[in-house]
Amino acid sequence: MQKVVTLKDMCVITRTAPMAAEVHGGRAKCLQRLVRLDFPVPKTVALSFDAVRRIAAGAPPDAAAILREFPTLPLLSVRPSSLNPDWGGPGAMLNIGMNAAKHEELCATIGEELATRLYMSFVQSYAIHVARLDADEFDASAHPSIDNLNAMLSVYEAEMDAPFPQEAETQLAEVLRSMARAWDGTSARLLRQAKGAPADAGLGLVVQEMALGIGPGESGYGVIQFIDAGTGQRRVTGRYKAQAISGEHLRDQDGTLYLTRDPRGASLEERCPDLFAQLVAFGETCRQRLREEMEVKFVVHDCEIMVLDAIRVQRSSRAAVRVAVDLAEDGIIPREEAIMRVEPDALSELLHRQVDASTERDVITKGIAASPGAAAGRLVFSAYEAQASAARNEPCVLVRRETTPEDIRGMHAAEAVVTVRGGITSHAAVIGRGLGLPCVVGADDLVIDERKRQFKGPRGRIFTEGDIVTVDGTTGQILNGQVRMVEAALDEAFQTLLSWADALRDIGIRANADTPADAQSARNFMAQGIGLCRTEHMFFESDRVNLMHEMIFSDTPEGRAAVLDRLLPLQRADFTEVFRIMEGLPVCIRLFDPPLHEFLPSGKPGMRDLADVLDLPLSQVVERIEQLEEYNPMLGMRGVRLGVTVPEIYEMQARAIFEATIAASQTGAPVVPEIMIPLVSAMREVELVQGRIDAVAAAVRAETGADFDYRLGVMVETPRAALRAADIAQHAAFLSFGTNDLTQMTYGLSRDDAGRFMSDYVRLGVYEEDPFHRLDLDGVGELLRIGAERGRQGRPDVTLAICGEHGGDRSAIDFCRTNGFDYVSCSPFRVPVARLSAAQLFLEEKHRGKL
Amino acid sequence: MQKVVTLKDMCVITRTAPMAAEVHGGRAKCLQRLVRLDFPVPKTVALSFDAVRRIAAGAPPDAAAILREFPTLPLLSVRPSSLNPDWGGPGAMLNIGMNAAKHEELCATIGEELATRLYMSFVQSYAIHVARLDADEFDASAHPSIDNLNAMLSVYEAEMDAPFPQEAETQLAEVLRSMARAWDGTSARLLRQAKGAPADAGLGLVVQEMALGIGPGESGYGVIQFIDAGTGQRRVTGRYKAQAISGEHLRDQDGTLYLTRDPRGASLEERCPDLFAQLVAFGETCRQRLREEMEVKFVVHDCEIMVLDAIRVQRSSRAAVRVAVDLAEDGIIPREEAIMRVEPDALSELLHRQVDASTERDVITKGIAASPGAAAGRLVFSAYEAQASAARNEPCVLVRRETTPEDIRGMHAAEAVVTVRGGITSHAAVIGRGLGLPCVVGADDLVIDERKRQFKGPRGRIFTEGDIVTVDGTTGQILNGQVRMVEAALDEAFQTLLSWADALRDIGIRANADTPADAQSARNFMAQGIGLCRTEHMFFESDRVNLMHEMIFSDTPEGRAAVLDRLLPLQRADFTEVFRIMEGLPVCIRLFDPPLHEFLPSGKPGMRDLADVLDLPLSQVVERIEQLEEYNPMLGMRGVRLGVTVPEIYEMQARAIFEATIAASQTGAPVVPEIMIPLVSAMREVELVQGRIDAVAAAVRAETGADFDYRLGVMVETPRAALRAADIAQHAAFLSFGTNDLTQMTYGLSRDDAGRFMSDYVRLGVYEEDPFHRLDLDGVGELLRIGAERGRQGRPDVTLAICGEHGGDRSAIDFCRTNGFDYVSCSPFRVPVARLSAAQLFLEEKHRGKL
Repeated sequence: MQKVVTLKDMCVITRTAPMAAEVHGGRAKCLQRLVRLDFPVPKTVALSFDAVRRIAAGAPPDAAAILREFPTLPLLSVRPSSLNPDWGGPGAMLNIGMNAAKHEELCATIGEELATRLYMSFVQSYAIHVARLDADEFDASAHPSIDNLNAMLSVYEAEMDAPFPQEAETQLAEVLRSMARAWDGTSARLLRQAKGAPADAGLGLVVQEMALGIGPGESGYGVIQFIDAGTGQRRVTGRYKAQAISGEHLRDQDGTLYLTRDPRGASLEERCPDLFAQLVAFGETCRQRLREEMEVKFVVHDCEIMVLDAIRVQRSSRAAVRVAVDLAEDGIIPREEAIMRVEPDALSELLHRQVDASTERDVITKGIAASPGAAAGRLVFSAYEAQASAARNEPCVLVRRETTPEDIRGMHAAEAVVTVRGGITSHAAVIGRGLGLPCVVGADDLVIDERKRQFKGPRGRIFTEGDIVTVDGTTGQILNGQVRMVEAALDEAFQTLLSWADALRDIGIRANADTPADAQSARNFMAQGIGLCRTEHMFFESDRVNLMHEMIFSDTPEGRAAVLDRLLPLQRADFTEVFRIMEGLPVCIRLFDPPLHEFLPSGKPGMRDLADVLDLPLSQVVERIEQLEEYNPMLGMRGVRLGVTVPEIYEMQARAIFEATIAASQTGAPVVPEIMIPLVSAMREVELVQGRIDAVAAAVRAETGADFDYRLGVMVETPRAALRAADIAQHAAFLSFGTNDLTQMTYGLSRDDAGRFMSDYVRLGVYEEDPFHRLDLDGVGELLRIGAERGRQGRPDVTLAICGEHGGDRSAIDFCRTNGFDYVSCSPFRVPVARLSAAQLFLEEKHRGKL
Repeated sequence: MQKVVTLKDMCVITRTAPMAAEVHGGRAKCLQRLVRLDFPVPKTVALSFDAVRRIAAGAPPDAAAILREFPTLPLLSVRPSSLNPDWGGPGAMLNIGMNAAKHEELCATIGEELATRLYMSFVQSYAIHVARLDADEFDASAHPSIDNLNAMLSVYEAEMDAPFPQEAETQLAEVLRSMARAWDGTSARLLRQAKGAPADAGLGLVVQEMALGIGPGESGYGVIQFIDAGTGQRRVTGRYKAQAISGEHLRDQDGTLYLTRDPRGASLEERCPDLFAQLVAFGETCRQRLREEMEVKFVVHDCEIMVLDAIRVQRSSRAAVRVAVDLAEDGIIPREEAIMRVEPDALSELLHRQVDASTERDVITKGIAASPGAAAGRLVFSAYEAQASAARNEPCVLVRRETTPEDIRGMHAAEAVVTVRGGITSHAAVIGRGLGLPCVVGADDLVIDERKRQFKGPRGRIFTEGDIVTVDGTTGQILNGQVRMVEAALDEAFQTLLSWADALRDIGIRANADTPADAQSARNFMAQGIGLCRTEHMFFESDRVNLMHEMIFSDTPEGRAAVLDRLLPLQRADFTEVFRIMEGLPVCIRLFDPPLHEFLPSGKPGMRDLADVLDLPLSQVVERIEQLEEYNPMLGMRGVRLGVTVPEIYEMQARAIFEATIAASQTGAPVVPEIMIPLVSAMREVELVQGRIDAVAAAVRAETGADFDYRLGVMVETPRAALRAADIAQHAAFLSFGTNDLTQMTYGLSRDDAGRFMSDYVRLGVYEEDPFHRLDLDGVGELLRIGAERGRQGRPDVTLAICGEHGGDRSAIDFCRTNGFDYVSCSPFRVPVARLSAAQLFLEEKHRGKL
C-alpha cells in the first residue's frame, strides 16, 4: 500500500503555501493568516482532508516525511482542523516525540519533575486515545516521579504486550491514524451532523512544533482576548500562567497570573510590560487585518512570545451586536457586513430579561418555549388570583390548563404564564408574545389540581399556590425558585445596527398591537405602523365584558344597538389613544372576530354569577350559552359571519373608528384608518360590510361636518379567500394574509389541538417543522402566491401583507419580498428581528447579483 | 298616443302565421300546433309580449281592430300566454261582449236562466278584476234572475258612477289593459321570479271566440287526458258536463258525466261513442304529433267538438318516467330524448315512500329536508329508547338535539330521525341518507326537554314520548299523527330508463357504503363499486365499542395491539361480506378516521358506566376523556394523524382487509381492495403509512402463501393535499376528493355549526347556495382542479374521483366529467339520480356539438 502524506498531501504553513479552509480546515488556514501577519508561529505542517480520509481508510501515513520537516526533533502537537470549529473533532495530542532519551535530555534543561510530568502525561494520552487502553489504569493525577513513570510504562507494556514505542515516527503515525479514525466514528459523525455539518465533512490535521512555556527567563502559557465576551466592550481579559506546559487548563488558583493590573494580585502587564504590549499589539493587528475580535493562545519562552493559535472570541448576543457595530464604526468592516454578522434571532434575547447562563437550574419541567424572556413569581392558578397578587405588588406566575380570553386580565397581571396544553400559536402564546410576557405552553407533564391549588410535576414533585418558580420562556423551562437573571440590553449599539438595517431594507415592517400599551411598544421598536389591531381584546376588560354579556342576551337589533351605544365611547377612546401614539403611521384595525361564546363563562358557577348580574333565570342563561356552543369554533360563527348577521357590532366599531379619526386628526397629523374584515370567504361578504361602513362614514361626516378618508381591506385567512382574491380585491384596498388561520385551514389542523402530535410529526419528519412556527412555503405559501397574484389581477395597486404570527420570521419575510408583498406585521417584540432579517435578505440578494 | 294592437302587434292564429313561444307565449304557440293538427279550434287572435308590455305602460289597445277579426260578434275570452305556464299570470276573462242586446238574443236561443247566468257572471268578473270593485258586493252564488241581474248592474253603476259598459270594444280594451297591468304588479312579479322566471318575462294574451257547451243536440264542456297522472299508465280520465258553460269548474256532483264507462253512472263513451272516439283520436294525434301526453279542453256544441286548448298533463315523477319510456318504446321519441325528459332529482322521490300529495297535513314544524322519504312512528328521545321500541316492533321516530356516533344504533332502529341542530351535511343527515332513512335536521323551533321526554313546538304545542308523528324528509316537515303515504316505485320503466342512461354515460358512478346492508343497496342500484367505505362505523356497534374503549385506555402499543387482535376477526368478517356482495366490482375502504374521543361518553353517567365496565377509578376515566377533548375536533387528532401516531389501528385494518381479500377471492372473482388514507396533508404521511401497510401485506402473504394485489390511495380533504397533489400522487394510485371536509376547510366553515347563519347567508346572496349542498365550483372546485392537474403531473395514470356528499349532484358530476375525473361516489340512494344526470350531461355536451 502506498504511503500517504507525500509532498502532495502535506504542506508546511508559510505565507505563500497553497492553502484553503475547504482543503486543510479552518485552523490551518487561520495559522497561515497569523504567519502572514508576521506573528511568531511555531513551525506547522498541515494535512489535507483528503490525506486524513485516506489514512482513516487504511493507508499508512508517511510520518518520516513529516518529521523531516522538523530537523531539530522537537516535541510535536497534532490538532484537528475541520471547516468549522463548532463541529468538534478529536482532542489535541501533545508532546509527541517524548521518550526515554528526550526525558533524560529535558531533565537536564527543565528539571526532573517537569520532564517526568510531560512524559507521564504523554504516555497517559497515548495509552488512552491511541492504544485505546482503559483510562482507569493510567491515573492522570499521579505525582510525577520516576517510579510512577516506570510503573505507567510497565502497565502499558503488560496491556499491549509490547514496550511503549520510543520512535517519534511510530508515535506520530499512530497518533495521526487514531485521530483520523476518531473523526470517522459513528458518534462523532452524528454529533457533528446535528450541528449542521454535511455528511462528507472532512478533517484536516496540523502538526506543530511544541513551544514549552518553561525556561530560564519569563516563560509561561496564556490565553488573551480583547473584549468582554458578555458585553462586547473593549477590554483585555484572559489568563496567564508562568512556567506552564502549553495546553494545560488555566485555573484561577494554581499560580495563574492576571493579565492586566488587578487589585487581586500580580499581573503580566506589571511584570513584563513589553510582553504585554506586544500581546495587545497582536490583538489590534488581528482586529485590523482579520477584521474580527480574536482570542489568542500564546507561549512565552525565555521572554519570547510564540503564538500557538487564534480563534474568534465566543460571545454573547449582546457582545456580537456591539463588536459588529464597533468594527464598522472604526472603519474596519463596512456597515453591510456588520448587519450580516448578527444573527437576527439573537436580537430577541436582548429584548427580554434572561436567565443568567451561568446559574444552576433546578428544572421542574420543560414545555414549548412560546414567548422569550424570563420572570419569577409566586404560583397562582387563576386569572382572579393573578390580579389579586398583582394588586398586593407580589409578582406572580399564572399556571393554567389553557388560557381563554377570560384570562386576559390575569395574564396582564402576571409576570409569566404557563399552560399545560397548546402549541406555539395557542392563545396564551400569542398573547404572551404580544405582551412581551415570558410564556411556556404545552407543559403536558404538569397535572393541575385546581381545587387544591397545586400542580404535580414529573417525579411526583408538588408545587402549591404561593411557591416561587421562574419561567424561562426562551428555553421552555420551568425552574424551581428565583434564579439569577440578566437584564434586557437595548443599548446604543443595538439601535445603531437597526438604523443601518432600516436604511437598506426594502419591505415594510409593522407590528401587531391590540392596546395602547402594545402600540407604544410598536413605536419604541420603530415599527412602521400597526398591521393588525385586534379589537376584541378591548371587550374583555372588566367594565366591558359585562356590556358584552348584555348585548349577547339582547334579543333584538334595537336592544343590541342600545348596549353597543354604551360600548361606543370606550372603543372610541381606545382608538383615539392608539391613533395618537402611532401619529403619522398607518393603523390597521381588524373588526370584531371571535365567536360570541368566548365571552361567556363555561362552568356552572360563572353561569350563576352571570344570571345574577343580568337578573335572568339561570335556565335562560344556560340555554343561551348552549345555543351559542359550537363543535368547531374555529370554523364557526365568527368574523365577518357575525358582521353580516349581527351588523350592529361592526357599525358601532366603524363609528368608533371614524369618531376617533376625527378626534386624533384634530390634535395631530391626519389619520387615515385602515379597516380590516376578518374570516372572509366570499366577495359578497365584503360588499355587504362595505355598504354598511360607507353608510356609517357618511353619517359621521354629516353629523360632524368633518371629512376623513379610510381604507377598507380584507384579512385573507380562509383558503377560499385566497382562491377568490381577484373578486375580493375589487372591494378591498388591501389584502392582509392571516397566516395562523390560513395554516389551520390549509392543513385542516387546529393550532390548539396540534400539540398532541406535532412533536411526533416533526420527529418523524412528516412535517419538516411545526407549520405554526415556520411558515409552510410549499402549501400555505402556495395559497399566498395564488392569493397575491389574483389579488393584483383584481386590483393592480392592492396592498399585500401578512399579519400572522409568522410575520417576523426570516423565511416568511424572504417569501414576502420575493412575492412583492408591501409589508409584514409581527408582534412588537419581533419587530427588531424582522428589521434586521429584512436588511440581511436584501443584502444577500444584492450579493447574489440580483439587485 | 298611438293605439297599439295594429296588424304588427296582433296575429290571427293560422297554420302559417309567424308565431313563436318567445314572442306570443306558450298558449298561443300551442293553439297554433292544434290548428296545424287540423283540430277544430275556435278563431283566436294572439297579442305579443311586446304589445302587452306597451299596453301595461299606458298605450291604448286597439280593441276595434281585434273585433274586426270576429265579424259575427261572438262572445270572446281572453287568456294569458306566457313562456312557461308555471309562472302564473292573470285569470282568464270569459264572455266578453255580453250586454243587454246579447242577453236578449241568448234568452231566445239558450233560455233566460242560462243567458242571465252568463251575463251576471261576466258583470261580476268585470267588476272585480277590471273595475276593481269590492268582491263582496258581487255575489257569485246569487240565483240567475233578471231581478238579481238588474240589482248587480245597479250596484256597478252606483260604485262607478257610470253604467256597465255595453260596447264590446270598451269591454275588450279594459280587459286587455287590466290583464296587462296585473302581470306587472309587484306580487305577481315576485311570485313568478320565485318560480324561476327572468325579471323581464313577458305576457302574451289570446283572444278567442267563445264556444258555448249549450245547444239543441249533445252539448257540453269537458277536459280529457289519456294517462293516469299518478302512474303514467295509459287510460282515459277526465270530466265532462252536458249543457255547461265552458270554463266552469267541473265537480263530481252537479250533473258531471264520466268520460269512460263507469259503474257509478252514465258516461260520454256510452252516450256518444262517436264523439268519444273523436276525442280519443285527438289524444292519439297529440301523442304522435306533439310527442307528449296532453290534457285537452273541449266544448261540444250540438254534436260538434271544438278544442279550446291542450296542455301537457301535470304528472307525478313516477308517471313522468313511465310516459318518457313508453313514448320511446313506441318509437315516438328517441331514447335520448326520453332520458332528457326526466328530471333526475325527481327519481329520488321514487326510491322512498312519500306522503300522499292529496293528504291533509297538520304541520308541527319545518326543518331542513336532509334525507328524502316519509315515515311515521312513536316519538322517542334517545337511541336507547329507539332500540327498545324497535325490539317491541313499534316503529319509532328518534328526535335528538343533534346526533353523534353514539346514536348510530338508535338511528338504525328508528324509522326516521329529527334533529334540532345541524345542516344538510350534519352527522344525522349523512347517516340518514346513507341508510335511506327519512331525516329532518335543523328543526330549531323545537325545544327538547329530555327529562320530561317531550318537545315543545311552535305555538306551545307539546309532544311527548309515544305520540305518533310523521316525518317528511322530502319537504322537511314534521306532521302530527300518521298520514297517508304512497310506496316507493322502482318499477320496470325506472329500470329501463336507467339502463338506457348507463349505455350513454361516460363517467363512473360508485356508492358510499359502510356496511353490508349499504353495499347491498349499492348493488341493487347498480353502482359500479364502492367509492367510500367508512370503516369506523363498524366500531360503533355494541360488541365493538367496548373493545374500542379498552383500546383507548391501553397505555402501551402492546396493550392496544392485544385489543385490536380481538377486533380483527370482526373487521375481517365485515370486509369479507362486503367484498362478496360487491363481487367483481371495486371496493375502496377508508382507514379509520374519527378522533378517538367520539367513542367516549360525554356525560357523567356514561363515564360512570364506562369506569364500571373497564374496572377503573372514575377519576382516571374522566382524566383520559379530558385529555382527549379537542377544541376543534374537525381539525384535530384524527385520520392519518392517528394512523401515524398510533399505527396499530391501521395495521389491524390492513390485515383485516388482506385476510378478507383472500377469503372472498377463494369463493368468487379475485378481489383487488382499494385502501384509502384519510385527512392527508403531507406526502410523508402517505409514505409512512404505505411502508407499514406494505409490511402487513408481506406478512399476510408469507403467513398464508396466498397472493393478492391492492391499490393504495389518498382521500384529498385538506386544501394542502390538493395543493401538494403532485408529490402525494407519487405514493397514491388514486386521489379521491372528500368534498365535505374540503368544503369545510376551504371556507373555514364547520358543517355542524354553519346552520346558524347559512339561511341568512343564502337569503342575502352571500353564498349562492349552501356549499355543503351544492359543490362550490368557484372555490372548492378551484382546489379540485388544481389537485387533479397536479395529481396527474405526479402520476399520469392516477385515478381521480370525488366521494363527498356532493358526489350525486348534477353540477358536481358535470364538473367531474369536464375535468377528466374517473368516477363520482355518492350515497346508494343517490346512485340512480347520478346515473341519469351523467347521461343527460353527456347528451347535452353531444348536442352542443362537443362530442
